[in-house]
Amino acid sequence: MARTVYLNGEYLPETEASVSIFDRGFLMADGVYEVTSVLGGRLVDFAGHAKRLERSLNALDMKMPMTEEALLEIHRELVRRNDLEDGLIYLQVTRGAPGDRDFIFPDPATTPLTVVLFTQSKPNLADSPEAKRGLKVISIEDIRWGRRDIKTVQLLYPSMGKMMAKAAGADDAWMVEDGKVTEGTSNNAYIVKDGRIITRELSHDILHGITRAAVLRFAEEAQMKVEERSFTIEEAQAADEAFITSASSFVTAVIQIDGVTLGEGVPGPVAQRLRQIYLEESRARAV
Amino acid sequence: MARTVYLNGEYLPETEASVSIFDRGFLMADGVYEVTSVLGGRLVDFAGHAKRLERSLNALDMKMPMTEEALLEIHRELVRRNDLEDGLIYLQVTRGAPGDRDFIFPDPATTPLTVVLFTQSKPNLADSPEAKRGLKVISIEDIRWGRRDIKTVQLLYPSMGKMMAKAAGADDAWMVEDGKVTEGTSNNAYIVKDGRIITRELSHDILHGITRAAVLRFAEEAQMKVEERSFTIEEAQAADEAFITSASSFVTAVIQIDGVTLGEGVPGPVAQRLRQIYLEESRARAV
Repeated sequence: MARTVYLNGEYLPETEASVSIFDRGFLMADGVYEVTSVLGGRLVDFAGHAKRLERSLNALDMKMPMTEEALLEIHRELVRRNDLEDGLIYLQVTRGAPGDRDFIFPDPATTPLTVVLFTQSKPNLADSPEAKRGLKVISIEDIRWGRRDIKTVQLLYPSMGKMMAKAAGADDAWMVEDGKVTEGTSNNAYIVKDGRIITRELSHDILHGITRAAVLRFAEEAQMKVEERSFTIEEAQAADEAFITSASSFVTAVIQIDGVTLGEGVPGPVAQRLRQIYLEESRARAV
Repeated sequence: MARTVYLNGEYLPETEASVSIFDRGFLMADGVYEVTSVLGGRLVDFAGHAKRLERSLNALDMKMPMTEEALLEIHRELVRRNDLEDGLIYLQVTRGAPGDRDFIFPDPATTPLTVVLFTQSKPNLADSPEAKRGLKVISIEDIRWGRRDIKTVQLLYPSMGKMMAKAAGADDAWMVEDGKVTEGTSNNAYIVKDGRIITRELSHDILHGITRAAVLRFAEEAQMKVEERSFTIEEAQAADEAFITSASSFVTAVIQIDGVTLGEGVPGPVAQRLRQIYLEESRARAV
């Protein structure tokens, strides 16, 4: 059955949802996105994603195309129309489709932003085999642009990174800049050493993960020690545990880095505990 | 009158040309492009653009979607159907529209590349007022990704750069990395000092301009001295002349850099001579 998607005010069958070839998302990667998880038909941390969307848009001189409430209603309507139990809602906003291609931004008064949302069904999203066994990652050079805190659709290199990982028999790649890990291709990166959770501090270098913020808050509430600083691949390989966080993977253990197995090669206690807390809290707070 | 554009095998009115919201060009900036100039209804350096297109595609594990001859025929058909005298033909190839969003590349056997071409009419393209008066540029930090030699549609930062230039009352921006100029937002950058033409050497840091290659060849044929090395903004401000090259601007003088006027503040003799040679040769060789 074809999904129903949302595009510029309309609910459409996915096969009929298309944008002009002049859309600046298509021609110039001039757009931003968010991915919100759905568990049991309810949205995880919707407010956080809406807030980050506004931040990304404002950083690029765009405005929120509608209120947070209106956005929430579209998310909920898509859940309903697609009978979505577990999965994701993808949202993208671009600077719209002016009548021609030009580097200069179009006038927002005459060129409305393009807004598209669609669902991705992922049955048992919180119970994935990957999370049970843990991930193998490789390291690759981070050659992305300098404003990774803006969640733009410039995802070519992260996509290439996932392909490099796949070719190496791994699940994902961690990116390294100036000798330090920035983040995973679509997630934030963490290590655990002597009871401390270590993850890179926020800056323009990494995405300000919504799940990252929640997990660090829950970790501190659970009296765990958190250290926000960058680390090297060698330090990660010598760590007791490693894990990633993202809206779609929640907290997922990393068990191997560039061929070096961490500990027993199974998800560690800190990653497992944080995953459990995060999922419990998320389900309880989902809207 | 609506343009006729080309999209995946069809010639369509521009208003009917649209791509799926799942197109990887739209969702992930997973695409490359070329812009070929048209002078007097004929294509300038088409072979060079076709060759670079193949290079960009191959660098991203994509194949040419058709032969160079078939591509040429589409360019020519668009010129005919749109009565294009002077202007540009824009070509974009993306990794196509699989049925869903995924970082992993789709199978090319089941997901054909998206191919789109459209014309932009620019009457008297070779006789622009900008070229006569020369350009004012500002410098901005170069924060683009590390593979600028691949002509991808990740053009958000160049677009932001043009907006920064506009806000500063300038025409364009030159990007600076590690203290040295890389290139303009959509062109290669040059200075002239003591009779030498200086432009940054080819690497992953800059686009391998088709116009750049032609202009350097013509310069050497005309016994001008060419030095391929990077330079600073301060060196550029102290130069005798400066200019840019691109498929759409050919050779265009730069007369002011970050508020500092070069020489008399008018296009210099080297830039003017190279523009003349380039236009003569291009018209003579256009197909």
